[in-house]
Amino acid sequence: MKPRLFTPGPTPVPEETLLELARPVTYHRSAEAKAVLAEVTEDLKYVFQTAHPVFTLTCSGTGGMEAAVANTLAAGDKAILLTAGRWGERWQGVLKAFGVETVAVKVDYGKAVTPEMLDQALGQHPDAKAVFATLSETSTGVGHDIEAFGKLVAKTDALLILDGISGLGAMECRVDAWGVDVCVTGSQKALMLPPGLAFVSASPKAWRRIDALPPRGFYLDLRRYRKSLADSDTPFTPANTLIRAQRASLKRIRAEGIENLWARHARIAAACRAGVKAMGLELFAERPNSALTVITVPAGVDGSGTLKKLEKQHGFKLADGQDSMKGKIWRLSHMGYADAFDVLGALAALELVLIEGGFKLEAGAGVAAFQKACAAGK
Amino acid sequence: MKPRLFTPGPTPVPEETLLELARPVTYHRSAEAKAVLAEVTEDLKYVFQTAHPVFTLTCSGTGGMEAAVANTLAAGDKAILLTAGRWGERWQGVLKAFGVETVAVKVDYGKAVTPEMLDQALGQHPDAKAVFATLSETSTGVGHDIEAFGKLVAKTDALLILDGISGLGAMECRVDAWGVDVCVTGSQKALMLPPGLAFVSASPKAWRRIDALPPRGFYLDLRRYRKSLADSDTPFTPANTLIRAQRASLKRIRAEGIENLWARHARIAAACRAGVKAMGLELFAERPNSALTVITVPAGVDGSGTLKKLEKQHGFKLADGQDSMKGKIWRLSHMGYADAFDVLGALAALELVLIEGGFKLEAGAGVAAFQKACAAGK
Repeated sequence: MKPRLFTPGPTPVPEETLLELARPVTYHRSAEAKAVLAEVTEDLKYVFQTAHPVFTLTCSGTGGMEAAVANTLAAGDKAILLTAGRWGERWQGVLKAFGVETVAVKVDYGKAVTPEMLDQALGQHPDAKAVFATLSETSTGVGHDIEAFGKLVAKTDALLILDGISGLGAMECRVDAWGVDVCVTGSQKALMLPPGLAFVSASPKAWRRIDALPPRGFYLDLRRYRKSLADSDTPFTPANTLIRAQRASLKRIRAEGIENLWARHARIAAACRAGVKAMGLELFAERPNSALTVITVPAGVDGSGTLKKLEKQHGFKLADGQDSMKGKIWRLSHMGYADAFDVLGALAALELVLIEGGFKLEAGAGVAAFQKACAAGK
Repeated sequence: MKPRLFTPGPTPVPEETLLELARPVTYHRSAEAKAVLAEVTEDLKYVFQTAHPVFTLTCSGTGGMEAAVANTLAAGDKAILLTAGRWGERWQGVLKAFGVETVAVKVDYGKAVTPEMLDQALGQHPDAKAVFATLSETSTGVGHDIEAFGKLVAKTDALLILDGISGLGAMECRVDAWGVDVCVTGSQKALMLPPGLAFVSASPKAWRRIDALPPRGFYLDLRRYRKSLADSDTPFTPANTLIRAQRASLKRIRAEGIENLWARHARIAAACRAGVKAMGLELFAERPNSALTVITVPAGVDGSGTLKKLEKQHGFKLADGQDSMKGKIWRLSHMGYADAFDVLGALAALELVLIEGGFKLEAGAGVAAFQKACAAGK
């Protein structure tokens, strides 16, 4: 049986990138290593759509989120948190650990925070120093209107700080044009690398804040990364083989072109949604994004059991809901190195397992609708 | 030309480990992933020689050092720092960032801190909450007598916190028997993996301290790692392909046996020192360790230029001195996946380059002495 990975991180890694990871290890303080980091940094700026340096940190996405909080806020500062799921709650956990007074604008799982809600919160809390948002709320499949958020926050002194971990590179996100002051992403999502690196951008507005605050912590102190990056270097021994491999995956993104890449993800996501609906299933997210499709487990179906069967019988690994959502949703990623034919296969396998389990469904309904949507180029 | 890596991190990675890194990426929250982490954790306990859990963090060694400081000390606490080089200074940087009042016991580069110095400092500062030490001071080649340090610190309420980043797995270090309360190491030294993972152990004495303190930070909060590891899991998306590959390198260590591995490193280091002396060169460290050999650049020789030639003409990559030591020493690692024949080759190449540069040296003097030491099994 052929294993196929459809979890919303880690995601499949291109073969040429995997082979890069098997190459002998080299020294991280050499002219070659600096050239690699310089190239990766330029390509990351392209992916982020920013003119400002993007920093490469050796850590999980959460380490990047901690860098975003620890560098921009002092204990006791107030922040507005827009939370629509588990990753909004991750922001909350980090904010709490750093003593930030958090005003939570919270919606139920499956819903999206609206620009109106943010507008109201900004009006009520003019002293908020930052707004924390999530591009793709991977726990529910919701995408947020960051462009609209950015317009509102830009009018204030607050910073817009974005968890772009599972969305960046899979859906439109223009860091500079949209006024995102700090954007965090991870290597293991649309950037087509195994986990291990986080990437963080900072706007001039963010830097003014950072430079005015005393440092909190050492390893994630962005000033150290800025100083080193001026010489195409890193302050601490980086995961240099991951960085070298990231170059290979970024080359693929450059070759496709960021707008084509967003459009491809949007097409596949739309086709996937059409297929899901044609199978008689419902989407969980009211504002679905292009990184993943989240399906509500229908009544009477064993959600977790179905995923186990899907993996055991057909090799397709989708993700279950997390924590309280376990067994209630299925999460199917189409980020990064996944094309329409991959996702078509996943829907076909899901059809088979559902039919076998007694769910009323006409075989081929989902895949035909998916195919029709692809043919229509939607 | 064949490139050969002799830098004291990163070090060469075994072929089977590199190939492991090229395998397709899998989901990090699965029974298989838990089994891998459980196995790696057991093997790390063996390498650390501890009965207590060792935590796997996705970060550089410095991230592990920050975890050691942030979890065990509050701002304003006093700590004794034993510093003999750049890595002692790295402890100092982290301690400063966390507001720790640091009493530095400092020796010149090339010297080792003695147990007597520590004894005196403990007598003068009975209120010190921790003692920070370095197993292998990679910037100078010095090794410290951690066993003796441990006996002194064990009599007090202070914790012994050890940077074992470049020494652990290359020289004898018995975390439990020697009373090391927190030990930090990195993946890219004797553990034969690329950079990207740090490993941290904590004794029951350390845990009593950690549990009594409020958390500082989120990503490096060891309590989160302890809670997850109880279920063979990690709190944040780990660099799971590195962990899987670490298993392969750890299998190699298990197969050799930790005491054989220490003995092998000691034999190679002794032979290397014999070779260096026979070449008419001097060792920089007064108490050299088995992880690397540090050679004083002889008067009249261009230190940095020699290393560049060595790499350009023969493919051998040694490390220069860092910062103020640049051009003054050569650092040759024999950690991890390096055997006597590798080091013999490095000495041969160094002989050739020195002779070509006009340094008075009989060709073969170094390699013969190295070989003689190997044959004597010293």
